[in-house]
Amino acid sequence: MGESMNIGVIGAGRIGMVHAESLAHRGPGARLAAIADVDPDTARTAAERFGIPRAVSDHRAMLEDPAIAAVSICSSTDTHARLIIEAAESGKHIFCEKPIAHDLGEIDRALAAVDAAGVKLQIGFNRRFDANFQRVRQAIASGEIGEPSLLHIISRDPAPPPISYIRVSGGMFLDMIIHDFDMARFLIGAEVAEVYAVAGVRVDPAIGEAGDVDTAIITLKFENGVLGVIDNSRRAAYGYDQRVEVLGSLGSASVGNNYPNAASISDAQSVRRDLPLNFFMDRYAESYTAELRAFVDAVRNDTPVPVSGRDGRIPVVMGLAATLSHREGRPVALSEIT
Amino acid sequence: MGESMNIGVIGAGRIGMVHAESLAHRGPGARLAAIADVDPDTARTAAERFGIPRAVSDHRAMLEDPAIAAVSICSSTDTHARLIIEAAESGKHIFCEKPIAHDLGEIDRALAAVDAAGVKLQIGFNRRFDANFQRVRQAIASGEIGEPSLLHIISRDPAPPPISYIRVSGGMFLDMIIHDFDMARFLIGAEVAEVYAVAGVRVDPAIGEAGDVDTAIITLKFENGVLGVIDNSRRAAYGYDQRVEVLGSLGSASVGNNYPNAASISDAQSVRRDLPLNFFMDRYAESYTAELRAFVDAVRNDTPVPVSGRDGRIPVVMGLAATLSHREGRPVALSEIT
Amino acid sequence: MGESMNIGVIGAGRIGMVHAESLAHRGPGARLAAIADVDPDTARTAAERFGIPRAVSDHRAMLEDPAIAAVSICSSTDTHARLIIEAAESGKHIFCEKPIAHDLGEIDRALAAVDAAGVKLQIGFNRRFDANFQRVRQAIASGEIGEPSLLHIISRDPAPPPISYIRVSGGMFLDMIIHDFDMARFLIGAEVAEVYAVAGVRVDPAIGEAGDVDTAIITLKFENGVLGVIDNSRRAAYGYDQRVEVLGSLGSASVGNNYPNAASISDAQSVRRDLPLNFFMDRYAESYTAELRAFVDAVRNDTPVPVSGRDGRIPVVMGLAATLSHREGRPVALSEIT
Amino acid sequence: MGESMNIGVIGAGRIGMVHAESLAHRGPGARLAAIADVDPDTARTAAERFGIPRAVSDHRAMLEDPAIAAVSICSSTDTHARLIIEAAESGKHIFCEKPIAHDLGEIDRALAAVDAAGVKLQIGFNRRFDANFQRVRQAIASGEIGEPSLLHIISRDPAPPPISYIRVSGGMFLDMIIHDFDMARFLIGAEVAEVYAVAGVRVDPAIGEAGDVDTAIITLKFENGVLGVIDNSRRAAYGYDQRVEVLGSLGSASVGNNYPNAASISDAQSVRRDLPLNFFMDRYAESYTAELRAFVDAVRNDTPVPVSGRDGRIPVVMGLAATLSHREGRPVALSEIT
Repeated sequence: MGESMNIGVIGAGRIGMVHAESLAHRGPGARLAAIADVDPDTARTAAERFGIPRAVSDHRAMLEDPAIAAVSICSSTDTHARLIIEAAESGKHIFCEKPIAHDLGEIDRALAAVDAAGVKLQIGFNRRFDANFQRVRQAIASGEIGEPSLLHIISRDPAPPPISYIRVSGGMFLDMIIHDFDMARFLIGAEVAEVYAVAGVRVDPAIGEAGDVDTAIITLKFENGVLGVIDNSRRAAYGYDQRVEVLGSLGSASVGNNYPNAASISDAQSVRRDLPLNFFMDRYAESYTAELRAFVDAVRNDTPVPVSGRDGRIPVVMGLAATLSHREGRPVALSEIT
Repeated sequence: MGESMNIGVIGAGRIGMVHAESLAHRGPGARLAAIADVDPDTARTAAERFGIPRAVSDHRAMLEDPAIAAVSICSSTDTHARLIIEAAESGKHIFCEKPIAHDLGEIDRALAAVDAAGVKLQIGFNRRFDANFQRVRQAIASGEIGEPSLLHIISRDPAPPPISYIRVSGGMFLDMIIHDFDMARFLIGAEVAEVYAVAGVRVDPAIGEAGDVDTAIITLKFENGVLGVIDNSRRAAYGYDQRVEVLGSLGSASVGNNYPNAASISDAQSVRRDLPLNFFMDRYAESYTAELRAFVDAVRNDTPVPVSGRDGRIPVVMGLAATLSHREGRPVALSEIT
Repeated sequence: MGESMNIGVIGAGRIGMVHAESLAHRGPGARLAAIADVDPDTARTAAERFGIPRAVSDHRAMLEDPAIAAVSICSSTDTHARLIIEAAESGKHIFCEKPIAHDLGEIDRALAAVDAAGVKLQIGFNRRFDANFQRVRQAIASGEIGEPSLLHIISRDPAPPPISYIRVSGGMFLDMIIHDFDMARFLIGAEVAEVYAVAGVRVDPAIGEAGDVDTAIITLKFENGVLGVIDNSRRAAYGYDQRVEVLGSLGSASVGNNYPNAASISDAQSVRRDLPLNFFMDRYAESYTAELRAFVDAVRNDTPVPVSGRDGRIPVVMGLAATLSHREGRPVALSEIT
Repeated sequence: MGESMNIGVIGAGRIGMVHAESLAHRGPGARLAAIADVDPDTARTAAERFGIPRAVSDHRAMLEDPAIAAVSICSSTDTHARLIIEAAESGKHIFCEKPIAHDLGEIDRALAAVDAAGVKLQIGFNRRFDANFQRVRQAIASGEIGEPSLLHIISRDPAPPPISYIRVSGGMFLDMIIHDFDMARFLIGAEVAEVYAVAGVRVDPAIGEAGDVDTAIITLKFENGVLGVIDNSRRAAYGYDQRVEVLGSLGSASVGNNYPNAASISDAQSVRRDLPLNFFMDRYAESYTAELRAFVDAVRNDTPVPVSGRDGRIPVVMGLAATLSHREGRPVALSEIT
């Protein structure tokens, strides 16, 4: 596959715009050839903004276009599995936002379609492409900190999403913490055997009334004996808080947050700096481009994608196990979830 | 009670020497009047070193001395409860190293003796007097970070103790993590309802052979809904690692480690600083003096001690619950432990 | 002036490529319509890389093109003044890399031509657009740290340029420190009255043999009484070191370096992080785009440019004064330089 | 000289109390045997506080006491030289606070008396014994950062002293910056050849009316080619600011300030920590004990003192040179000052 690989983006919402911008301006090596949105105006506006040759309201027009080699699925979660199947059957390579689905049966049907079609599928766990987490992964993979024994992931949003979103989100374990489940696997390079989740409503009672939680601690037992813990909150007053720490036999690797500047102000009250980058669009801007570049490279060079369909499935299993653990107040082995 | 309050130290081992040094040189407001050790030479050497007027091999000589108002019990753990009872019956105020005992019945008999005698008993949870942890406690107590929701305690030793010590230590949960159980209660100002412990042998197989673990993560559910997690290791290659972090509704408070200097070296490899203060004798030197000063103040002013006998009992309950949780692989309510 | 403002870049060397990349991919609001380089192959290669419609070897072809509204002069320093005059006479708005020239007469002729033509001229002091320095400027301008009294600028390159470059550079004060002279004026918002420079050869004797210095400290007396100091080195083993600190009556503002990641590694030797971003292409990548965006905005909205021709002249005066101060071993008033 | 070395302290003011406390409680290896103060009540109160056997109002009683081996001169600056001579003639070893005197003739007479008597004289440049500055010195002396080329010292007080003190202080260069002149020599391990001082009144006009300055930058040219700069202010709103940085051929060493705790608070406004330790009594507490311990060791082992009389003289020369430089607006060679 040559220089002229064309990609279409399906879904011109927030994350779709992020991908369109990466493809249009940040040069991951492919051409943004078409954009689809169920709302024709949204598709057209996006096309104008990024100079995209083609805007469609029905993604099938894109799938039927032989000039399009790959699609990026950025529509709502409930459409992911179906679109993966359609795209695979059209012979398109697929980049799909996380999660594939909340139902393992749906996921398995999607992955089977991908296998049958022999196309590539990469899942959008963009944090794997962040410079901070890659540096920690490197510290582990290179042996710089020896054999890992303890993992701690901190993941806190600046503020909870609207209650309307909470209601359809699949719950905190599947919606928010799924990123951290992936990060745990990515950093340690091993599978989790068992999870134990405690959680509660500490941020907003309305979240509890909607049947969800907003604060959680999940303990992980990895198959290789590493112990891990994830702590999460839907609200950190100081902004987006994304840190990890791994203790190994030779030392530890940890990452702090990213800041808008490196300035420090000292006055008669305190020595202080500005708040961390506020949310994922700023914090992970570069990783969104990097994951697309990796996908394009994998397609063009016919090499394995860095985040496979299986990598998309397992965090859902972990989210279901954590949900069950929290509901039943007991550790849950991943093998219980099928 | 006037200027001339006399204290005797029982046990001239490592921690006894720390207390003797505080009393002799750092002026917590009392006079180090006597030292007792079962080994007469050890007692005598300590007396010479710190200019202590009286050295005895039998602590009962100290307890019979009407000039002595209080004792600091620094002998081995298995003698604590018995010595508390003897000291209480002699009308002495008591400062006792942690833990009181590993057996709740023993603890309760000791506390009953203290109550019956009407003397004061303070338990040696020195970390409560450390400037770092006090600053975090203040951030919570003053409302600076709002209502707490998440607590994380990191507690790692530079290297495990000898296996001979491991064998008689009561296990990692009662020997090492007991400090962190106390810290959890101190910082949040509330009681823990349930613990869940995962643990393993990651540092040294010989620790496993001795029936203990060396790496652990303990999840805490507080009665007030706060969620907490403690992570522990018997070995951190970079030294003693003692940090905490609390997330509240208005922000977070966290403490890093203490360092021997504030120097930073940059060369062609890295930007770096020297390792943190290596172990508790250096890291907590000032808190050992501060806790004795607080005890002396409480005795002289007849005010409540800052760390009560009950404060000594509860972390043992937590340690027993965590031990049970680890053994049975399930969350354990503190109410199960009686 | 509407959406379709076209810009041409003159000079397809290193900094020309930075500007071309900003214009092509980072969207400062203008279209990169042409590129000129005395070497036709270089121009053509650049045009292909960035999809530029027109590549010329003679910049005059660009200046004669009525569709081109503005040029970015990225050629060698000795051509700047002449190209400014030519561009002004062609009615083009001008963005010009620093310095305008090393000779004040040449500079004045160029500025006169700009004035006569009524076009806009912005000088490429890109550091003014860096988030770190802007935060410090904001701390001063907003009164956050009160009235400034002391300024310290640290500016160190990772390694000296080739001796061949040193020979034609105009000397360290005019080549390297000119950026810091501009930064001093930018941060304090006032003019310097007097400089005193001490300098020596500490990095490489060959630099001294070429008639230049590689290490310098320049003291600044501002007209408003602020005192400042700049320290410079052509080599910092740990990479590019770009920091400033301002002390004011209410506090201080300082900036550290920027790093490739926020990871910290602790092992048995040290607690460390990776080296700072190595050189100006990485460190100031975003500021190069931001200065072009500001230029385009000024042209399109007919507002003043943020870095004027006068802003380009004064640092040259300071550089000449510092050179004289170093040569004669005495403080030199800027009014001496005409 | 054996265990029982007795020291007397002359002057029971602020710094005398610091020394008395070190000798009484912090165990530098000598016995605090007597204290002298021209005010008998002050002497008696101090004696009671620290359990000092003897309190006198006339220091000559102390000098005549054959049991006293050494004295620590903590009286006002104008008495230092005379007391050194008297103590030397009495055969006492001498620890003397800085500066010896502001007049070089007085200093030379005092040093001659010390030489003639063959006693030891150590000057109280306590910062040399601070862990931070020692770490930087070690980085240079060990070759960790290669050959030094640039030095920067930041030295700022939290607030200016009373105007009454300013009037008799000898001026900022001799009173405050003398510590930094010593630090420059200590860190680089070489002598300064020339200084250039710019200074002004930025903190309080009353300081200017008293004939002094409150803000200064001093450039140093070392004999070995190292370039240095000291920046000073009589006021930093955020507290005591004491930092240094040295750039060498292999890297740099720098020290930040010391803080009362290692806590960090994040809220909706900023990420911040408490202010640095406020002033020299807190910041340098340990270095005051360490310098006395070094003195006692030198006397008892008959080894050279770490800060000699010559080390006390040279910073005064530097202070006089800086004063002259500021007055005449030109660089001043130290060889001009005799």
